[in-house]
Amino acid sequence: LIQIDEEKIHSTINEKKPRSVALDGPDGILKKIQSCAHRLSEKYQIPVYVIGDTSWGSCDLNIHAAETLGVDILFNIGHTIAMEKFGDKVVMIDAFDDVDFGKIAKICAIKLKKKNFSKISLVTNSQYLQSLQKVKEIFEYHGYEVVIGRGKGHLNDAQVFGCEFYPAYDSKDKVDAYVFLGQSIFHSTSIAIVTQKPTFMLDPYFNEFSEINDIAQKLEKKAILSVFKAQDAQTIGIIIGLKEGQFAKIKALELKRLLEEEGKKILLIAMTEITDERLLSFQDIDAFVQVACPRIGTDNHFHKPVLSVPQAISLIKLLKGESTEGFLQIKHWL
Amino acid sequence: LIQIDEEKIHSTINEKKPRSVALDGPDGILKKIQSCAHRLSEKYQIPVYVIGDTSWGSCDLNIHAAETLGVDILFNIGHTIAMEKFGDKVVMIDAFDDVDFGKIAKICAIKLKKKNFSKISLVTNSQYLQSLQKVKEIFEYHGYEVVIGRGKGHLNDAQVFGCEFYPAYDSKDKVDAYVFLGQSIFHSTSIAIVTQKPTFMLDPYFNEFSEINDIAQKLEKKAILSVFKAQDAQTIGIIIGLKEGQFAKIKALELKRLLEEEGKKILLIAMTEITDERLLSFQDIDAFVQVACPRIGTDNHFHKPVLSVPQAISLIKLLKGESTEGFLQIKHWL
Repeated sequence: LIQIDEEKIHSTINEKKPRSVALDGPDGILKKIQSCAHRLSEKYQIPVYVIGDTSWGSCDLNIHAAETLGVDILFNIGHTIAMEKFGDKVVMIDAFDDVDFGKIAKICAIKLKKKNFSKISLVTNSQYLQSLQKVKEIFEYHGYEVVIGRGKGHLNDAQVFGCEFYPAYDSKDKVDAYVFLGQSIFHSTSIAIVTQKPTFMLDPYFNEFSEINDIAQKLEKKAILSVFKAQDAQTIGIIIGLKEGQFAKIKALELKRLLEEEGKKILLIAMTEITDERLLSFQDIDAFVQVACPRIGTDNHFHKPVLSVPQAISLIKLLKGESTEGFLQIKHWL
Repeated sequence: LIQIDEEKIHSTINEKKPRSVALDGPDGILKKIQSCAHRLSEKYQIPVYVIGDTSWGSCDLNIHAAETLGVDILFNIGHTIAMEKFGDKVVMIDAFDDVDFGKIAKICAIKLKKKNFSKISLVTNSQYLQSLQKVKEIFEYHGYEVVIGRGKGHLNDAQVFGCEFYPAYDSKDKVDAYVFLGQSIFHSTSIAIVTQKPTFMLDPYFNEFSEINDIAQKLEKKAILSVFKAQDAQTIGIIIGLKEGQFAKIKALELKRLLEEEGKKILLIAMTEITDERLLSFQDIDAFVQVACPRIGTDNHFHKPVLSVPQAISLIKLLKGESTEGFLQIKHWL
């Protein structure tokens, strides 16, 4: 079960004595955030607002919502990163899943032996960070050398985002395989794509582990195909995401110049949530480049190609007749 | 065809010499806004951003998007109101439809005679404001007394929003019927509900006119039913809309107090686009009150009751055992 670090919320409120606060987090834990809001509201008798907009990650904190509401503190719950605060309003609150990885880690450790893997790296996303040590010990007990990749920027050691992979990337030439803690195909497929190594996902709920390289390969092929499709576009819409941590206007203007040099007509678009439904209103655009989040186009269905920054750079190389091989095997997709 | 007042955009750019601009407007004219963006970008060689977020009205100008982008001017196209500017960034640009109402106005004038209507009021939404005078003359030629209701606040004479109806409301005891110029069931039904008078919609594209009171009655019944359904709610989510012209925190806190006095448990929620999909994440809420836009709950499908401010006030009266009759027959639904 997901456990929100409510203690930290209480101690922060007791210390700062805010007149009102807001709570924000990913949709998956909104139910728990609601209960938390009721408890805080009752205990402190101050307005407690739950932000109902999406919060996809630490790139998407809804600080503007907090400013509009005029709250003194915005608690962002469930996006544990290497920083505890953002500016003077945002306090990051952990939400860890206390599910036990012991059983599936043991099964996995025994089975991977048969594949002659002796050196593995453990990676995970925020909610299982505290399970790392135990899983590491299990694999070590079974004779593996276990690498915990170094964090960087917002990332803790062994942590990956959907867009940044330093702890995985930096060890890719030193290990035989990656073992991802958790049920996230979203996170584990990108590790497989970036490292091109066997990557296994440990699912502690069903006590299963699975190699996700086939799924990853399909995702990668889809991403490459989008780039090829976009080659023929006459008009390309370059979308600037308006979420605070996804805003990349300079990058958008740079890609505009490069694509115009290759004969493309460009429309600059600014948007908060980039969805197929919203893009259908842009009928005269043949393909899109979005500089907001690299996973939007690859992990959702769109009627037209929607390229991320690495895909757009690959497109420009293609148009120049240059090789684009390995354009997704990089440390981050931003 | 919709004609954007591009002349005003050019003269504003020539006068203010902005380093970059943004264009924004309702989805229906986004195609024309795109062409306009290409022309401006080519002529002035400055970045021209099209805002891809929704812009439902003059309450929804996306000023935050303009500020994030750092543009000098935000042209809001197609939401003609009584003001030409908002703050120092937003310039309102007309987009009028030049479709000819002559034929259908004449047919309507002749047919309504048979119903013994002699005094009518003309109303419309922004895009047909310039057709008013001609239609007025046609009805007058056929012997009607024609009332053009006075504008107020953001509203021009004879203009209605989906939420504000002064020009219609103020004349309701003086006229036999309302004639709405345009194809908008959204606007014309609210006139029928508010005034409780026969209301006719002139459709200049199909050259048809139709009485919309039956549709309006269904909408009103649906709105009343939602209030009755919300009576049994244990927990009510009060949603504060984050769009600049829809932000009503004080109203939300007031409704919270009043509903708590009636024994309801309240969760405060803040949200930009209030959709059924977003609300489905709030599983433990039995009904919602939203203080953003009164048409959200009545004109869209939601799995749970979503009440506007007048509906919420009606709910509070119901809970107190007071009469709520005629709660939608008011000047505005805010």
